[in-house]
Amino acid sequence: MVNIRTRDVFADMRPELQRVEARLEESAQVDFPAVADLVLGLVRAGGKRLRPLVLLLAARSFDFDRDLLITAGAGVELLHTASLVHDDTVDRAALRRGRPTLNSVLSSGAVILLGDYLFAQSAMLAAATERPRVVSIFASTLADICDGQLREMFVAHRLDQTREEYEQRIFGKTASLFAGAAEMGAILGNAPEEAVQSLRRYGADVGMAFQIVDDVLDFREGTQQLGKPAGHDLTQGTVTLPTMIYASGLTESSTAMSRLRDVVAGDLDDPGDIASVVREVRASGALDAAMDEAQRFCTRARVHAASASDPETRELLEEVADFVCDRST
Amino acid sequence: MVNIRTRDVFADMRPELQRVEARLEESAQVDFPAVADLVLGLVRAGGKRLRPLVLLLAARSFDFDRDLLITAGAGVELLHTASLVHDDTVDRAALRRGRPTLNSVLSSGAVILLGDYLFAQSAMLAAATERPRVVSIFASTLADICDGQLREMFVAHRLDQTREEYEQRIFGKTASLFAGAAEMGAILGNAPEEAVQSLRRYGADVGMAFQIVDDVLDFREGTQQLGKPAGHDLTQGTVTLPTMIYASGLTESSTAMSRLRDVVAGDLDDPGDIASVVREVRASGALDAAMDEAQRFCTRARVHAASASDPETRELLEEVADFVCDRST
Repeated sequence: MVNIRTRDVFADMRPELQRVEARLEESAQVDFPAVADLVLGLVRAGGKRLRPLVLLLAARSFDFDRDLLITAGAGVELLHTASLVHDDTVDRAALRRGRPTLNSVLSSGAVILLGDYLFAQSAMLAAATERPRVVSIFASTLADICDGQLREMFVAHRLDQTREEYEQRIFGKTASLFAGAAEMGAILGNAPEEAVQSLRRYGADVGMAFQIVDDVLDFREGTQQLGKPAGHDLTQGTVTLPTMIYASGLTESSTAMSRLRDVVAGDLDDPGDIASVVREVRASGALDAAMDEAQRFCTRARVHAASASDPETRELLEEVADFVCDRST
Repeated sequence: MVNIRTRDVFADMRPELQRVEARLEESAQVDFPAVADLVLGLVRAGGKRLRPLVLLLAARSFDFDRDLLITAGAGVELLHTASLVHDDTVDRAALRRGRPTLNSVLSSGAVILLGDYLFAQSAMLAAATERPRVVSIFASTLADICDGQLREMFVAHRLDQTREEYEQRIFGKTASLFAGAAEMGAILGNAPEEAVQSLRRYGADVGMAFQIVDDVLDFREGTQQLGKPAGHDLTQGTVTLPTMIYASGLTESSTAMSRLRDVVAGDLDDPGDIASVVREVRASGALDAAMDEAQRFCTRARVHAASASDPETRELLEEVADFVCDRST
């Protein structure tokens, strides 16, 4: 399902996003010549800046201090970047967005410490807002992210997961930061408490949709688009929504089920076996069913956006939700 | 040099330290049965709690809220613990305080994420003080710690380091957290700004002494005391004050200098070669000279303590400084 967009939220918000970008590059300065360019390259490679965008928009209907908002937006994006650095080390990923990860050019020790350093810088940006509630959300969001990533790790290679477990896990790993970004923006905008809560829910739903789409794209794209081969999650033993939907359509004793079980367990790790499971998941309709689920989260996000903002901002928030479901990379 | 102590600061402060302990264990609860006990064991194995002790004492002459102080003290100790978890992963250390590291029983990915989780929990404790300045110090201390650890990594295997580089590095790695703990305590005690600054310097000096003593103990102790074999720093190519003092007494063309250079460079990594460098450093008097340097930092710490506290608290702060220089583990 493709939504017809009437505005371009990225163009409308470009001046603010450019200021976030500048603040981000300032904070990512590292005093070690050997790695300074690597870290800057990593920060610059950072896509659409959806998390700071959500933070900026959440404040837009209210009475905000632009400079604090830019600072918090940079903090949120840097927290995301730091978390990717550690995540790539955990996964031993060689590529991210088509570029070599830090992990592939530095020792894992250096990458751990650089990730920690970026966490520290992001916490300094959050602290610079001088708003205790913003700092608390920031810290608890980091805890949620780690919790989600640890859950993913501890349930890896297991096919017997419930949808609730999947949703809890992707909330922590991804949606928590979108939720936190929206909440921080609303708080910095001095929004009424009811609007703060609606915007938090908006962020959470956008984040859930984002991760489901990511999990679908993992089955769809090849190396050139996403920077990693299709079926990467399966090779890690990570069971996502498309796999769950596909598995629910198989009979227990089928060959397909047996192969899926072996691939997830890591007992079958031949690229050919993984590729054929990927093809079967694609052919089963599970990707469309998962996209429908993402769309349901986007629809809920639109409802929350409507209750908490002026008509123009509402339109921009809706654009972001639509973008998340329509994106192909 | 052994100081005669008249009081036992650990006994005097036991009730407060026990409350820190309880808060710490609360925050280190992890919702994953497989690792909960490991993390709790790690937190419980945590030595003398010197950092929270410094934080508590820094507020003691002033007007403080005990509960906030306990919270911040637990935050400081948990930040330290999280940083040890990552540090052991960086070093691939198998033992810490005589116990197996997380690193030796879990995948490095799990350890990275658990360390991040503990960082998040420590940041939540700092945020719970609701004091923006405390949160800022907390975040910039984490940045200082990473900076010190990265410096240590990037200058490893190089003998041509200045004393200034060494001091900058151990300030970041160790003294920054003692300095930050004292500063946070003083701020939470609503101390006058001048006292805040003196207490920060007290903490920094105690921390410098602490790390120099640590670097000396690395040459002195065997596995049973410190939980790692003597000469561990040398095997990592880490050049510390004793090695620098020892090297400054060697002629460039001597066999001893050539062997030292090869051991530091990692070209000689036979345990026998490392053991004989360790013996020579011990025999050279470099350890006593380094201890004298630690003692100088302790003397400075005593001066700062005197300028910023009531007589009883001053005595307790002095006890801590003396303990740091006298400790044998």
